[in-house]
Amino acid sequence: MKTRLIEKTPSAYDYPLLIKQLLLTSPVHQADQEIVHRESRRYTYRQFQARVKRLASGLRAIGLEAGDMVAVLDWDSHRYLECYFGVPGLGAVLHTVNVRLSQEQVLYTLRHAEDAAVIVHEEFLPLVEAVQSKLPSVKKWILIRESDRDIKSSVPFHAEYEELLALGDEDYSFPDFDENSQATLSYTTGTTGEPKGVCFSHRQIVLHTLGLAAAFGAMAGQGRFRSDDVYMPLTPMFHVHAWGLPFLATMLGVKQVYPGRYDPEIILNLLIKEKVTFSHCVPTVLSLLLNSPVINEVNLSGWKVVVGGDALPRGLAKAALDLGLDVYSAYGLSETCPLLTTALLNREDLDADREHQLDRRIKTGLAAPLVDLQIRDNLDRPLPYDGRCCGEIVARAPWAALGYHKNQIQSEDLWRGGYLHTGDAACVESGGCFQITDRIKPVIKTGGEWISFLELEALISRHPAVAEVAVVGVPDEKWGERPLALVVPATGRIEDFPAEEVKSFLLKFVEEGVISKYALPDRILAVDHLPKTSVGKINKKVIREKIKV
Amino acid sequence: MKTRLIEKTPSAYDYPLLIKQLLLTSPVHQADQEIVHRESRRYTYRQFQARVKRLASGLRAIGLEAGDMVAVLDWDSHRYLECYFGVPGLGAVLHTVNVRLSQEQVLYTLRHAEDAAVIVHEEFLPLVEAVQSKLPSVKKWILIRESDRDIKSSVPFHAEYEELLALGDEDYSFPDFDENSQATLSYTTGTTGEPKGVCFSHRQIVLHTLGLAAAFGAMAGQGRFRSDDVYMPLTPMFHVHAWGLPFLATMLGVKQVYPGRYDPEIILNLLIKEKVTFSHCVPTVLSLLLNSPVINEVNLSGWKVVVGGDALPRGLAKAALDLGLDVYSAYGLSETCPLLTTALLNREDLDADREHQLDRRIKTGLAAPLVDLQIRDNLDRPLPYDGRCCGEIVARAPWAALGYHKNQIQSEDLWRGGYLHTGDAACVESGGCFQITDRIKPVIKTGGEWISFLELEALISRHPAVAEVAVVGVPDEKWGERPLALVVPATGRIEDFPAEEVKSFLLKFVEEGVISKYALPDRILAVDHLPKTSVGKINKKVIREKIKV
Repeated sequence: MKTRLIEKTPSAYDYPLLIKQLLLTSPVHQADQEIVHRESRRYTYRQFQARVKRLASGLRAIGLEAGDMVAVLDWDSHRYLECYFGVPGLGAVLHTVNVRLSQEQVLYTLRHAEDAAVIVHEEFLPLVEAVQSKLPSVKKWILIRESDRDIKSSVPFHAEYEELLALGDEDYSFPDFDENSQATLSYTTGTTGEPKGVCFSHRQIVLHTLGLAAAFGAMAGQGRFRSDDVYMPLTPMFHVHAWGLPFLATMLGVKQVYPGRYDPEIILNLLIKEKVTFSHCVPTVLSLLLNSPVINEVNLSGWKVVVGGDALPRGLAKAALDLGLDVYSAYGLSETCPLLTTALLNREDLDADREHQLDRRIKTGLAAPLVDLQIRDNLDRPLPYDGRCCGEIVARAPWAALGYHKNQIQSEDLWRGGYLHTGDAACVESGGCFQITDRIKPVIKTGGEWISFLELEALISRHPAVAEVAVVGVPDEKWGERPLALVVPATGRIEDFPAEEVKSFLLKFVEEGVISKYALPDRILAVDHLPKTSVGKINKKVIREKIKV
Repeated sequence: MKTRLIEKTPSAYDYPLLIKQLLLTSPVHQADQEIVHRESRRYTYRQFQARVKRLASGLRAIGLEAGDMVAVLDWDSHRYLECYFGVPGLGAVLHTVNVRLSQEQVLYTLRHAEDAAVIVHEEFLPLVEAVQSKLPSVKKWILIRESDRDIKSSVPFHAEYEELLALGDEDYSFPDFDENSQATLSYTTGTTGEPKGVCFSHRQIVLHTLGLAAAFGAMAGQGRFRSDDVYMPLTPMFHVHAWGLPFLATMLGVKQVYPGRYDPEIILNLLIKEKVTFSHCVPTVLSLLLNSPVINEVNLSGWKVVVGGDALPRGLAKAALDLGLDVYSAYGLSETCPLLTTALLNREDLDADREHQLDRRIKTGLAAPLVDLQIRDNLDRPLPYDGRCCGEIVARAPWAALGYHKNQIQSEDLWRGGYLHTGDAACVESGGCFQITDRIKPVIKTGGEWISFLELEALISRHPAVAEVAVVGVPDEKWGERPLALVVPATGRIEDFPAEEVKSFLLKFVEEGVISKYALPDRILAVDHLPKTSVGKINKKVIREKIKV
């Protein structure tokens, strides 16, 4: 294609899309708007901007440079939001550490990322102390103190977070650089044992922010996100930038509330006290809140809650609607930044009856603007939007990760044929509404966290009493899904299979940090044999169907 | 800066921002949504998409290629919207011809653009016939027929527009190419006699569309643009893509109404019949509508009208509010695509009294997200936002034109010091609200069209009765501003200066197409002398002040 390229006059500013630009307007237009952390801290956008600049220049002052990896271990806080802007602002990469992973997995991610600095909240000191000797790349340790207690640690902290900010300059000017510079890194666990690093560039995050503005802002109907909302994330900030909403909230100058470590009582208090209007979470968190003993004493009417990370169960959605919540689904992956679809209702849906609305709210939803979403058969051929054909969802989006960090094989597998493969199967109505029907990738999602079948099976099969093993996910009201292990005893005798002994055996791996405690199967069931496919592989489809019955 | 660049796995789709992607979702999600042209045509988004693809492939079929310039001369129509997507979609450049320019200026722009094809509405046949022999670059002429009358023309038309579409393929697949490929070209008249070509890339138009979604969609308050609006532009589509709103409307799947040639009666009919909720125009057009004899017989309550292109007069804004319109200002230039600011009211403004609201609505407004807007003194030093300092507005935005087409000197002047110079002076409140106070560039804006002082002065001074001349803009209720010429007679005698003769002399230039009829001064005033600055230049500031008194 010989198109005509735009000519740039030498003096023109060829505007690179950088995260710093999301801060251009709101600290001026909404200078007195608030950012709140739990009940402990409250400040303005004006102060926020000054602190972001202090953070970036403070990191520069202690020797951090563009291109360095900076890991953060913290609960959802104003400080985390400062890191979202300050760390990429200086050209470094923000590594948002998933603190729910096992210790061994956290160590793996810190080593794999080759972090140069680690900013760590005091609650995660035991974790960091256990692994620090194995992290030769880390040059600077920064402590986030929240309590007043005396902290003695073997970690050679360079500075406390507030001291670091005091070192910085609130008039620091963020540099310009290539918009394809990496801004963030986070790890996702999936089909194999080792977490995979997902990278996003400044360009991708800015485009995702604009995409969210279009998808949640400019669409008519209910559930929208606007500049007069009060925002509180209930998806951890280490999970793909809390779905990117903190970037949008900051660009729009929205009041933001960060709940720290999730505690239903504190969350409900903040919801009421700060008049929160917009949140997002996985079904498990919503369920936890709705099951709070005080739920009937508070008024959550009008609270907009986007549910993602897993399918929104109809019962949960109904319970939420009964309480006056405006709840609906959205869909995306860590690899897609994550926005792919939203199940916002349109005018016709809103005119229809409650049952119809409920049906729409729990759908996977419609592709967001600029998202090219298709379903493909197992030969990667596109399938029609006819409400019947089911296939794997594949995607292209301006904000889709272009591969995994230092993992070429999985990167190519993710993008085979030029489309990002989600591992989820769906059928699509002629009007473009997606409904996920099945999961293709061999993982279990429990409370919003991934567990790998393969890893769990490998560990169970190490026990001498086990001949064969198959782990499947079974639906669970509270967690979405829980792992169930089916084993064929080595002795061949079901009746005396030592299930409790195998559980204790697995517990060791949890204690050693090899797997997270979420991964521990609730039940280990001995069976005569496992169904096989024609080529002799364990047929999980048949197992899942049998379990349903 | 040694940042870490994102690594792309070979199979990943490195999503270029292309106009075709604005069509990804709405033709599926809003397949039956309507696009309306006057009272003559009405079709669905599904049909729209098919016609856009037919247009692109039809142009390919008759030999047009990526990189070719394709000029369009049409009133606001569904066809123009098809050209917005179809022409850039194939990699060609859409040249939107300003049909309000003089014939000579239109000829200049067609020659300067080196158009390969011209798509022309039958109403502009006389214009095209007069200039076609001077356009060697044009290989293909396409006629847009609207009436049933027999058309005989000296122009060698290759096809009629609907025939061209019939040649095309509705399953045509738009190619991928560099996002910095030029998508559009339009000409702006300004401080010098020759129109300047403003170019926008695919990337810039997609980013501008997202910027509009954030600025008009995600902001709370009144006047917003949403997917359930009914949109009718009242800014010509040849003026910087009707401010880019047709791209946003199409991305969101909004019902769109195109009014053809502006006729107050037809516009008012369409407003009522199609239930239009969102429009934009220059003050002159709004004034024209509000002065319609039937204005009190129709109900325009709730109609959102963004007024730009010139300051929104308080009286006009008040009259509009009295009729129930939701009217407010926005600001931008042809060179800025155009979004720079909007004067949307926030929650506090909406709680305040009507007079306060009126004051806010007519302000220049707040910078849109991602827009870096400053004021500079005459040494190009930034001035504070203190409500007192006044300086020239300079801008950076992801959608600001990177220079003029084949005009390096003016391009560099526009971007001197790395900021785009608007030629407008403003002061800025501490909260970031801009108020334009003066115009720095030597132009008059009348009915939304620019007139150059310099050109007019040069023509007037050619008359033998004129010794010295100064043209200034004087405020005009209907047109915003009108040119007034002050002349010092060659004889030195004011009393017998042949003002009417000079007017007739100028009329010749209008007839010859050198200047547009808008440029003709209503009054030519003989004066003893013209005030001069210390260096002997005519002091227009003094003249303007004297005229006010």
